[in-house]
Amino acid sequence: MTKLLDENRVLLLGGLRAALAGSSSLARIVRQHVGIEDETGKPTDSVGKLLRPSLVLFVAQECGARVEDALPAAVALELVHNFSLVHDDIQDQDRTRRGRPTLWAVHGEAEAINAGDYLCAVAFREATQSRGAAACIAAATMEMIEGQSLDLSYESRFVSIEQYLAMIDRKTGALLRCALELGGLAADVADDVRRSLRDLGLALGRAFQIRDDALGIWGDGAVVGKPQGSDVRRRKKSFPVVWSYARAGAGEKEKVESVYSGKVVGDSAVAWVIGLMERLGAPGATDAAVRQNLAAATTTLERLPFSSSGRTEMDHLIDYLAGRTK
Amino acid sequence: MTKLLDENRVLLLGGLRAALAGSSSLARIVRQHVGIEDETGKPTDSVGKLLRPSLVLFVAQECGARVEDALPAAVALELVHNFSLVHDDIQDQDRTRRGRPTLWAVHGEAEAINAGDYLCAVAFREATQSRGAAACIAAATMEMIEGQSLDLSYESRFVSIEQYLAMIDRKTGALLRCALELGGLAADVADDVRRSLRDLGLALGRAFQIRDDALGIWGDGAVVGKPQGSDVRRRKKSFPVVWSYARAGAGEKEKVESVYSGKVVGDSAVAWVIGLMERLGAPGATDAAVRQNLAAATTTLERLPFSSSGRTEMDHLIDYLAGRTK
Repeated sequence: MTKLLDENRVLLLGGLRAALAGSSSLARIVRQHVGIEDETGKPTDSVGKLLRPSLVLFVAQECGARVEDALPAAVALELVHNFSLVHDDIQDQDRTRRGRPTLWAVHGEAEAINAGDYLCAVAFREATQSRGAAACIAAATMEMIEGQSLDLSYESRFVSIEQYLAMIDRKTGALLRCALELGGLAADVADDVRRSLRDLGLALGRAFQIRDDALGIWGDGAVVGKPQGSDVRRRKKSFPVVWSYARAGAGEKEKVESVYSGKVVGDSAVAWVIGLMERLGAPGATDAAVRQNLAAATTTLERLPFSSSGRTEMDHLIDYLAGRTK
Repeated sequence: MTKLLDENRVLLLGGLRAALAGSSSLARIVRQHVGIEDETGKPTDSVGKLLRPSLVLFVAQECGARVEDALPAAVALELVHNFSLVHDDIQDQDRTRRGRPTLWAVHGEAEAINAGDYLCAVAFREATQSRGAAACIAAATMEMIEGQSLDLSYESRFVSIEQYLAMIDRKTGALLRCALELGGLAADVADDVRRSLRDLGLALGRAFQIRDDALGIWGDGAVVGKPQGSDVRRRKKSFPVVWSYARAGAGEKEKVESVYSGKVVGDSAVAWVIGLMERLGAPGATDAAVRQNLAAATTTLERLPFSSSGRTEMDHLIDYLAGRTK
């Protein structure tokens, strides 16, 4: 963990607990999903990295706002992220996440739809308490869902790198851009700073997702929480396969299509796709794309009115994201 | 239709069209669901009664606000209502609504989850444009989803009339109370007026839902759009069955439980349950509950600072809801 992700963690946990208080069965279910309570009602701290809300508070402080003024926006954004995970797990029929059973796997799809909807509504109630946050989060949520819809539509076709980027800039990028922008909004920064914050978010979002894509194919299963090659097995149109498909020969394209359409399945088909990607140089190209976006993030960082210690913290976060293994 | 439902219809249609503009596939899908566009992209007017947003604008005007100031809140509330319908249809596995195929039946469950989420996000973006609307709608949305979750939990058990009311006050009542309150918020009314508006919404919500429950059992299939007895077939814990169950003998209770648990199915079982309800007097009791809540609505109406023509319009709406056949 980096200092940026660590320093406001207790504050954020408190904000999440306060936002999700309530005695209804639904409130209990979502507290368990978010990771602040176990099945017996005992408080826990299994909320993950809290990347997005930590970024909100960090940027707010660096831009001169009080951290309390940005807290509702930060909590709201983390709740939107969690709502998207609950619905995403239903859509992908994923039964585990971070080593725990997913909400729908325990409570059924109908109640999981409710739980996601509830998290979304709580998020917007929280968002109304930080200046400008509700409109910013609503726009980002729309983009995120458009990305989710694009991702779904890509299941049945191969797409270009540009189409891939259009999808991840929405599905993953929207909330990260929003995180940085919300920090700026809390401090009422000038328009050019807001634009730079969005640029930084765009670059971080791409680096983050493309790195995630690499881990979904070449990551260490024990660390990442999913087996090697799992994104090929799941036929995800992630960066390495989109990049490789564009460079494959006609016969190879046809074979990749067979595997990704589900006509050919099994370990040897998955191994063949991974082998093809490696022959074409996808691991290096994927790494290069991550590094390129992290470099863009570093350049944008120089334009922001951060303190020198803030700049260092953000640099550490960028290094951390570049090297993360899960 | 009454004047109250008619007078701002064109304005509301325009507001819905503006809110849902956009070229993404998701935007097109939700325009079709809401009923402002057909499959070829041609504008349509199949949006239903627009009860909730019409109430927002009517109350806003009667309380002294400009209708334009309340329009974003009205549009937002209608979008929340529509988001709940999209997800409700997945949860109930309903393939048709208002004679048209439901969104999930055409586009699949995963995309229907996205479509509901998108409508919710657009709703909150709109809500940020009317004073106080986003917080009010967020709280009502949370209540609505808690009601939806209660309704789901009632599928596996019989409940008291009090538990039934706790459910419908949330599932149906929350958005109706919110409609009236949003009108008051746009005019910045005093707290006592706001409370009366909520009381009126509570009574209207109960009358509306209990009447709907009656139609789900004794309604004319050709008019209501679902066959007679359909809510028995679907094993819904609606007012007539909850009321009858509380009054049934031990042997009758057991038989009702068998039918509602799905152990006994078929037309004769449904006919037996309907016969029991009629013997116990459920049709009269259901009617009486509707009339009692409409009377409460009329009494509350007298406390509101409406014009005499406004009072008449609202009275007409109450009569209309009392006698509606669909």
